[in-house]
Amino acid sequence: MSIERSARNPAAPAFPARAASPSASTLATRYSFVRGQTQALVAPLSPEDCQIQSMADASPTKWHLAHTSWFFETFVLELALAGYRAFEPRFRSLFNSYYNAVGAPYARPARGLLSRPSLDEVLEYRLHVDRQVLALLRAGDLDAALAPVVELGLNHEQQHQELILTDIKHVLCTNPLRPAYRPLPSAPLAGVQRLRWRAYDEAIVPIGHERGGFAFDNESPRHRVLVPAFQLASRPVTCGEYLDFIHDAGYTRPDLWLSEGWDAIRTQAWRAPLYWEEKAGAWWYATLAGERPVQPDEPVCHVSFYEADAYARWAGARLPTEFEWERAATGIAVEGNLQEGGAYHPRPSAPNDNDDLQQMFGDVWEWTQSAYASYPGFQPATGALGEYNGKFMCNQVVLRGGSCVTPQSHLRATYRNFFPTGVRWQFSGIRLARDAR
Amino acid sequence: MSIERSARNPAAPAFPARAASPSASTLATRYSFVRGQTQALVAPLSPEDCQIQSMADASPTKWHLAHTSWFFETFVLELALAGYRAFEPRFRSLFNSYYNAVGAPYARPARGLLSRPSLDEVLEYRLHVDRQVLALLRAGDLDAALAPVVELGLNHEQQHQELILTDIKHVLCTNPLRPAYRPLPSAPLAGVQRLRWRAYDEAIVPIGHERGGFAFDNESPRHRVLVPAFQLASRPVTCGEYLDFIHDAGYTRPDLWLSEGWDAIRTQAWRAPLYWEEKAGAWWYATLAGERPVQPDEPVCHVSFYEADAYARWAGARLPTEFEWERAATGIAVEGNLQEGGAYHPRPSAPNDNDDLQQMFGDVWEWTQSAYASYPGFQPATGALGEYNGKFMCNQVVLRGGSCVTPQSHLRATYRNFFPTGVRWQFSGIRLARDAR
Amino acid sequence: MSIERSARNPAAPAFPARAASPSASTLATRYSFVRGQTQALVAPLSPEDCQIQSMADASPTKWHLAHTSWFFETFVLELALAGYRAFEPRFRSLFNSYYNAVGAPYARPARGLLSRPSLDEVLEYRLHVDRQVLALLRAGDLDAALAPVVELGLNHEQQHQELILTDIKHVLCTNPLRPAYRPLPSAPLAGVQRLRWRAYDEAIVPIGHERGGFAFDNESPRHRVLVPAFQLASRPVTCGEYLDFIHDAGYTRPDLWLSEGWDAIRTQAWRAPLYWEEKAGAWWYATLAGERPVQPDEPVCHVSFYEADAYARWAGARLPTEFEWERAATGIAVEGNLQEGGAYHPRPSAPNDNDDLQQMFGDVWEWTQSAYASYPGFQPATGALGEYNGKFMCNQVVLRGGSCVTPQSHLRATYRNFFPTGVRWQFSGIRLARDAR
Amino acid sequence: MSIERSARNPAAPAFPARAASPSASTLATRYSFVRGQTQALVAPLSPEDCQIQSMADASPTKWHLAHTSWFFETFVLELALAGYRAFEPRFRSLFNSYYNAVGAPYARPARGLLSRPSLDEVLEYRLHVDRQVLALLRAGDLDAALAPVVELGLNHEQQHQELILTDIKHVLCTNPLRPAYRPLPSAPLAGVQRLRWRAYDEAIVPIGHERGGFAFDNESPRHRVLVPAFQLASRPVTCGEYLDFIHDAGYTRPDLWLSEGWDAIRTQAWRAPLYWEEKAGAWWYATLAGERPVQPDEPVCHVSFYEADAYARWAGARLPTEFEWERAATGIAVEGNLQEGGAYHPRPSAPNDNDDLQQMFGDVWEWTQSAYASYPGFQPATGALGEYNGKFMCNQVVLRGGSCVTPQSHLRATYRNFFPTGVRWQFSGIRLARDAR
Repeated sequence: MSIERSARNPAAPAFPARAASPSASTLATRYSFVRGQTQALVAPLSPEDCQIQSMADASPTKWHLAHTSWFFETFVLELALAGYRAFEPRFRSLFNSYYNAVGAPYARPARGLLSRPSLDEVLEYRLHVDRQVLALLRAGDLDAALAPVVELGLNHEQQHQELILTDIKHVLCTNPLRPAYRPLPSAPLAGVQRLRWRAYDEAIVPIGHERGGFAFDNESPRHRVLVPAFQLASRPVTCGEYLDFIHDAGYTRPDLWLSEGWDAIRTQAWRAPLYWEEKAGAWWYATLAGERPVQPDEPVCHVSFYEADAYARWAGARLPTEFEWERAATGIAVEGNLQEGGAYHPRPSAPNDNDDLQQMFGDVWEWTQSAYASYPGFQPATGALGEYNGKFMCNQVVLRGGSCVTPQSHLRATYRNFFPTGVRWQFSGIRLARDAR
Repeated sequence: MSIERSARNPAAPAFPARAASPSASTLATRYSFVRGQTQALVAPLSPEDCQIQSMADASPTKWHLAHTSWFFETFVLELALAGYRAFEPRFRSLFNSYYNAVGAPYARPARGLLSRPSLDEVLEYRLHVDRQVLALLRAGDLDAALAPVVELGLNHEQQHQELILTDIKHVLCTNPLRPAYRPLPSAPLAGVQRLRWRAYDEAIVPIGHERGGFAFDNESPRHRVLVPAFQLASRPVTCGEYLDFIHDAGYTRPDLWLSEGWDAIRTQAWRAPLYWEEKAGAWWYATLAGERPVQPDEPVCHVSFYEADAYARWAGARLPTEFEWERAATGIAVEGNLQEGGAYHPRPSAPNDNDDLQQMFGDVWEWTQSAYASYPGFQPATGALGEYNGKFMCNQVVLRGGSCVTPQSHLRATYRNFFPTGVRWQFSGIRLARDAR
Repeated sequence: MSIERSARNPAAPAFPARAASPSASTLATRYSFVRGQTQALVAPLSPEDCQIQSMADASPTKWHLAHTSWFFETFVLELALAGYRAFEPRFRSLFNSYYNAVGAPYARPARGLLSRPSLDEVLEYRLHVDRQVLALLRAGDLDAALAPVVELGLNHEQQHQELILTDIKHVLCTNPLRPAYRPLPSAPLAGVQRLRWRAYDEAIVPIGHERGGFAFDNESPRHRVLVPAFQLASRPVTCGEYLDFIHDAGYTRPDLWLSEGWDAIRTQAWRAPLYWEEKAGAWWYATLAGERPVQPDEPVCHVSFYEADAYARWAGARLPTEFEWERAATGIAVEGNLQEGGAYHPRPSAPNDNDDLQQMFGDVWEWTQSAYASYPGFQPATGALGEYNGKFMCNQVVLRGGSCVTPQSHLRATYRNFFPTGVRWQFSGIRLARDAR
Repeated sequence: MSIERSARNPAAPAFPARAASPSASTLATRYSFVRGQTQALVAPLSPEDCQIQSMADASPTKWHLAHTSWFFETFVLELALAGYRAFEPRFRSLFNSYYNAVGAPYARPARGLLSRPSLDEVLEYRLHVDRQVLALLRAGDLDAALAPVVELGLNHEQQHQELILTDIKHVLCTNPLRPAYRPLPSAPLAGVQRLRWRAYDEAIVPIGHERGGFAFDNESPRHRVLVPAFQLASRPVTCGEYLDFIHDAGYTRPDLWLSEGWDAIRTQAWRAPLYWEEKAGAWWYATLAGERPVQPDEPVCHVSFYEADAYARWAGARLPTEFEWERAATGIAVEGNLQEGGAYHPRPSAPNDNDDLQQMFGDVWEWTQSAYASYPGFQPATGALGEYNGKFMCNQVVLRGGSCVTPQSHLRATYRNFFPTGVRWQFSGIRLARDAR
């Protein structure tokens, strides 16, 4: 990546790196940093913004703030502190997301109906939890079995940071007034790398997380996979390329679509990515910085798996498997247009002439063609935390690489995100692959 | 009504009477008072409370605040002031409720998804509208045709005052934390009038509004109706009486129910009025003052038409027609437990021994058996305001008498409220009638 | 009615008149005739036709054949015959329509899923019931209390005769092959009476059935109603007149519609009556005799209450009340284009110049503006048969006068039919009324 | 498999084997045989049985008969015969299932609403098609490109044979009268093989169809897959074992279920396989031979993927991948309880003591854990037939091995069936796998 680009897209230097040594960055420091970052994201929002659940897939900001605290209260404080007094006992079910082992959760689609507790009370709840977790961490009193739970809780918190931004984007961008979360830090960029194909030979490759450092259970066990020869595109598909697909009647040709995709575009009247609107012959999109003309050189974003798949078919290519993606990403530094950069919007690739893969991390989550499944020998955690990942291994698809709203310290080449095939409100885009030729 | 009771339930003396002479109460004064009262109702609420739409039938408080201002802006200011500049042109569709003649309204079930404009901005919008309407009224510049529209706007505002309270009751009472809007101003009362039947002979009676004073178009034309002999209960059905119905298996006997009612109780698992809950063998209800044990002497409230009809059948009686009700109410003073009293909750009848009808006004809206229909010769207003009442004359039922959240100056004996047969979130109760015997 | 017309539309002379004296027409004869007529209606249908339930409102022909037999079995044979052995005990719930007092009925929308019993078995079931009912009737053994139940059962059977035709019309006319039930007995007619308004002064009129002859409970008690002066159209609205409404953008102007009607036409994409289709600029409709060009002089048919109401508003008129209708119909002979005529399709009025009301009986059911409600002092029957009419007095509208598929012996001026406001598959049309001028 | 068992479960010797040499079994002979077999399956059914679509997933028998003929008409006759005259041109859209390239198909959930064409007309349609296809085949006039299409059409026909049986089972077994399709040819069996685990080492194995003989496009290309070491159960899970799961509260413990599965059992109130019913403490199921007590030794059947997955988790095992299954099945003869045997119901395994895998083919389709996806390098056919398989590769799961209603000549070890995770009306069961230990 050229100096010029990284100057415009800096990884915030003050951000404590995830893999930093324990002496430089204790768990307590990391806890403070991550929890504080969540609250920083909420700063531009009013209590009313934080209240809204604009669709069943999304949650109110206030709920994210409460639920992430509930996580530490339920899985750390209640176990670590004899006689722990809950901030409010009724929060136990109110802010439970889906852990049946903890009790019956409050109905998900009704999360936006809780005006009480207020945002202020939820922030107080956070403070209550933070004070006690930090006291535990600083006193070194934490049971050895609970330290990994704190680490899990911080990664969980980072996932909700990303959801806070995607969910509030849905709130603001479906409001007819098209309000902005905050202005774009810099002007949109133009220029783009000419698409190249990078070739890989058939190989048996290790897939999944190696011991050392945090990873989710679904990245294990590390195992060997035979990956046939393939080629991978050097950068994601751009808005301009996607417009060619639209203009070539992409949304009206059933032969390009999976059967379910064709149903989805007809039932929901899709004719462009989410947040796109055609006005007087020109395409606009709503962003966290307000409404703007679609920028042709940016990676296309907010497409469903169906759209990614149809685009690939139209382009004479296909989506990569998650194994192809991981193989190609291994060894590439986790850098790019990530949450720390503060853009919260994808940026064009560097308009250079070399063959390097660009934007494997950040910008847009890349849909793979791989159904989300367990790795051979997978064992979920015991108890309630076993519900974290495993029970969702059904009818979802893996995305890789993180997006412009993913924290850098949260990502790695083995990271597996997953969503149902029809969702579009995540920062999800397309990188093409094709068979060796 | 005995002195003792009226001491507990005073009609606020400072409230300008609706029928006061023009010299004592100008339109400007009344405008200020009614608009201010709306905002006073919002005082106990947070911006988050005001944001929530807890079901499609209800609207957010913030929306009520904006829509009532939109009414004056659209139907008064835009017509009265050449070159009027809208506070925000996009509000024209955003806060249109259902006036197709004004343009396509914003989708009703999505009213709770607008975090912007904020509550503060909406209050500024109100101020903007108020300043200009008041200037018009005080300068005496208002076109003669527009004065009735201002009066209509104020009655419209009062309807939304009532809805603000019923809708926020739904928000708060379906929150598992059961928060209160504000404490009950006084302790619950006990004691109740022994039910008596007041008899009426067959007569041809005038029905509908006489000229003089404001009334809605649906109260006209005044016309004659032949009303057969009947008897009317001296007070509404109490919670205690309704509990007898419940304990007599009222909710499990199909012979007591209209076919649609039987469907409703099975589909929605009703087994008591809305907001009632059985805990450890005792019945509780959620109120605007928080959760309390059901008070047997209070009028039962939050029942659907189906439940009112089934109760009446169980009791060997029936619901009155709206003509029977109006005939009985004519000449009775519009006094009682109304919005001005500030209880926002029904109260027991006076435990006396006389035969007077009690609580014809206030406490609970009384379901009649009359389908909401036009009076012979009915003419809706021309233009958009013709959509106010007439287009809803279908599959709704008339309720009479106002409730504990209806402003006194808004009511009269000819007033016709109307709701679909299955709704329960209004302060709706039951007064029995029966055929002459 | 001119001779020419009645020649084309004869009331079948062999049909035993309803009010005939007991000596001329015993109950047994009438039983045989009515039950046989039901089966005659099924003759043109295949077992497959009889199997289909094309929507939840309709029922399969086979179900109608079984349910009407179930009625006699349950309400006559089981009571009259000690030790009666059911044809098949499981039919008791399988063919119960909605009598909760008899037990839980089989789910209505699943009536089309019962391939067994077969049509042949159901016809055998009919035979089994007929043999025993006729034996009872001929032996004169019937309990006095049961004779009226047999009479009710025959009227019930006639209602299902009408439903057999309306339901099979829906089956055939929504089949893309547009099959015919049978050919039209004669060529369509042209020519129509010029619309006249017949005026009525205000009067107190008796409404409801007088003692003598069969009537449903919902036609009683006879009572007095004050009917203001009004005018009634001399014939129903024609297809040609309705086309004017369509061409005047009737389906796109919200001001013409009730709010629920406007929702219905948008949600269901109505732009003409049911079974109408525009092809190459011309309007066609599907009929029981196959597809044909819309005939402008015929009464318009298969419109919902919403459409009838909107048309009336567009025409500067309104729908009549059921009291206006009954007053005007009193004294007019029950003759016209009825089931016995065998047309099963509405016919034009007689193109004469006199002021007589035409087509008050037959051709199309006429939507009134009256909600279906009990008459003052109404008492439903005791026991299960009390569920026949009363429990549906909610959110339905009264239609009067019968249609081209109603048996003559089933009708009278006091007869009240009722349907929800959105249904269109009945032979329902429009007669206009207006206020006196 | 012991002699005793195979005597009871013979592969019909007269059935022309799929892989027979061209000289022994020409395409014409095979065409006659397969088409005739379809009609033989319909023999026990009435026209009414053939009419019914009991749910959206299923189709009427009559539709299957027509659609399979449509396939040959559209993809063979229209291309092979210049000036071919369609039997009925409107069938082109009426009996199109999902081939968008052929035009807009008739709405799938409305397939049961077509009483016309009648069953007789559809049989005539079959005859019309058969005559012309056979003439082509016998004359040797068929274009070389069309012979594979005929072969595809026959395999397509066999898939619909299976669906005819599963769909009519749903029709009959959800009828409260519980009619039988036909009696069970022999008494139910008892006795079962003790479950053994057969171990496999890690290996790179070829997966997919080798050239030679018919296979669907989704079985290609043959490619190499690295399959880790695993163990496979020697026979499917039995009803008795599944009852242990039920009695151990299997349907009430969320920790055993995928999140979507837990939703499904709560929403749909599942507490046992489809067609099972508990009466007076004993379990019964409805079968094609009528209602019977559940037989503990038979393979459990009519379970969804969710139930298969939950059972496996409860049993401390997992479902096999499709690669594990195929590796184990390779080399095993395609024999067993298949359609030709005529049982149409699963049978117990042979109660022997050896370690052989039993029932890999027939009895019940075995849910794998593999999402249905394309093999590396997959190319769907061009044109409309490319829609056959590829467009369904999304949110479905692979099942292997065929069932008691699959024709023998239709199966092979590489055959991939696929269904959504929630369906239960197929003959789907469970074979366990576990990691090597």
